[in-house]
Amino acid sequence: MNLLLLWPDEIAADGSIRLRDYRAQHLLNVLRAEVGQTLVAGCANTSIGTATVLERSDTSVLVQYDARHQVEETQPRCLLLAIPRPKVLSRCLEHAAALGYTKIGLFRCYRVEKAHLGSHKLAEEDMRRHVLHGIEQARRVTVPEVRVFGRFNPFVQDVLPTWVPDAHRFVAHPTATKALSEQSLNGAGFSLAVGPEGGFIPYEVQQFEALGFTAISAGEAPLRVESALSYLTAQLDLLAAVHPRLNRAKTH
Amino acid sequence: MNLLLLWPDEIAADGSIRLRDYRAQHLLNVLRAEVGQTLVAGCANTSIGTATVLERSDTSVLVQYDARHQVEETQPRCLLLAIPRPKVLSRCLEHAAALGYTKIGLFRCYRVEKAHLGSHKLAEEDMRRHVLHGIEQARRVTVPEVRVFGRFNPFVQDVLPTWVPDAHRFVAHPTATKALSEQSLNGAGFSLAVGPEGGFIPYEVQQFEALGFTAISAGEAPLRVESALSYLTAQLDLLAAVHPRLNRAKTH
Repeated sequence: MNLLLLWPDEIAADGSIRLRDYRAQHLLNVLRAEVGQTLVAGCANTSIGTATVLERSDTSVLVQYDARHQVEETQPRCLLLAIPRPKVLSRCLEHAAALGYTKIGLFRCYRVEKAHLGSHKLAEEDMRRHVLHGIEQARRVTVPEVRVFGRFNPFVQDVLPTWVPDAHRFVAHPTATKALSEQSLNGAGFSLAVGPEGGFIPYEVQQFEALGFTAISAGEAPLRVESALSYLTAQLDLLAAVHPRLNRAKTH
Repeated sequence: MNLLLLWPDEIAADGSIRLRDYRAQHLLNVLRAEVGQTLVAGCANTSIGTATVLERSDTSVLVQYDARHQVEETQPRCLLLAIPRPKVLSRCLEHAAALGYTKIGLFRCYRVEKAHLGSHKLAEEDMRRHVLHGIEQARRVTVPEVRVFGRFNPFVQDVLPTWVPDAHRFVAHPTATKALSEQSLNGAGFSLAVGPEGGFIPYEVQQFEALGFTAISAGEAPLRVESALSYLTAQLDLLAAVHPRLNRAKTH
């Protein structure tokens, strides 16, 4: 936990909050926070600042939140992830939240085992816990929206066209011929679809392409989904970051 | 397992190999390979080709290996990783091997818990298993060299100067001011040092910098070590891939 995440409705008018849940446990047992100590803190979807410990008992901690700056509206970053094995799902949610995704859509497709849909890891509370771990780890305060889609066609045909922005849509596909290094990205916002370990079937890639998704590959070596997620996000981030340098190339 | 990994000394003169270990189990129980079936296979550090199933019993599989092309000498990619928690170590080894690292140095530094050094996950056999899983997953045949260094100073002062190539040395440090997007990389070979979750101490970063390592950051958000590993490798890979485009910029 690199940031103490607070919620707007739990902060009293004077800025104090009494914590009794996992956050209190973490402050008491892991960080061993003392009275007077100041920690990086944030208010969900609102502000980043500091929290000062006012009181501590065996089970609760009273902190004073001091908002330093409001968070700006971030560009939407959307992850569309074929539902992975339950253990992998938890890690993917944590990584995705840490990587700054603002929307996470988990969907079933042909090579997703039906059994995964029944996993308790898909329970809202469980997913929420991993997402919060991810943003606390990465010192973020924007809480991503997570949705689960049990059927592929209604997802891509009815939801996807309007749920993610029109521009910068990518679908990861091992045999894609377009290299990411030849793409351009002028900003941090994008949508990335990542398939199951066995890959998408051709029909599914066509469905994404029909919606303007560009099929890109993470290289010749097939990566595990959690590694591919960080790998592809990193390349899209870098592509946005080198855009000015590449642009200077063109205009000369 | 996306590639059946074979070893030079187990292939008979006629190209046949009788498998009885984890590979036989995988062929029989997961892939349910039938006689006559052909699989992607490779011979460690030597060649890539196919293996055809000749016979199968309940416990063993006889395959015929057919080398299609020799693997070229790859540019050295060196990962220098502060020893993480044992569970994370296993995943990092698998990811690192899949990401194409040819040398993996695990070292202790100030913020690595001493207890991690005693973990059975650092046992040679255990590490080897995860490394092989990684290359089998990524359809690679180059088996990385893995070494463990129990003390930081002897590692950076006596081993590191000659163990990794002189060029393209990077150390990941959260507060580094140099953005990776402003670096240049003309080839796939590089060395990347990744610290523990709590980061390197300043002395350690200085030691790396004294050896020509450039301190780079994975962005403002602190990532978990396994996510940072894939993230930074991806950005170095993309940087090498966009090098010609960036170079066109300069020469115009």
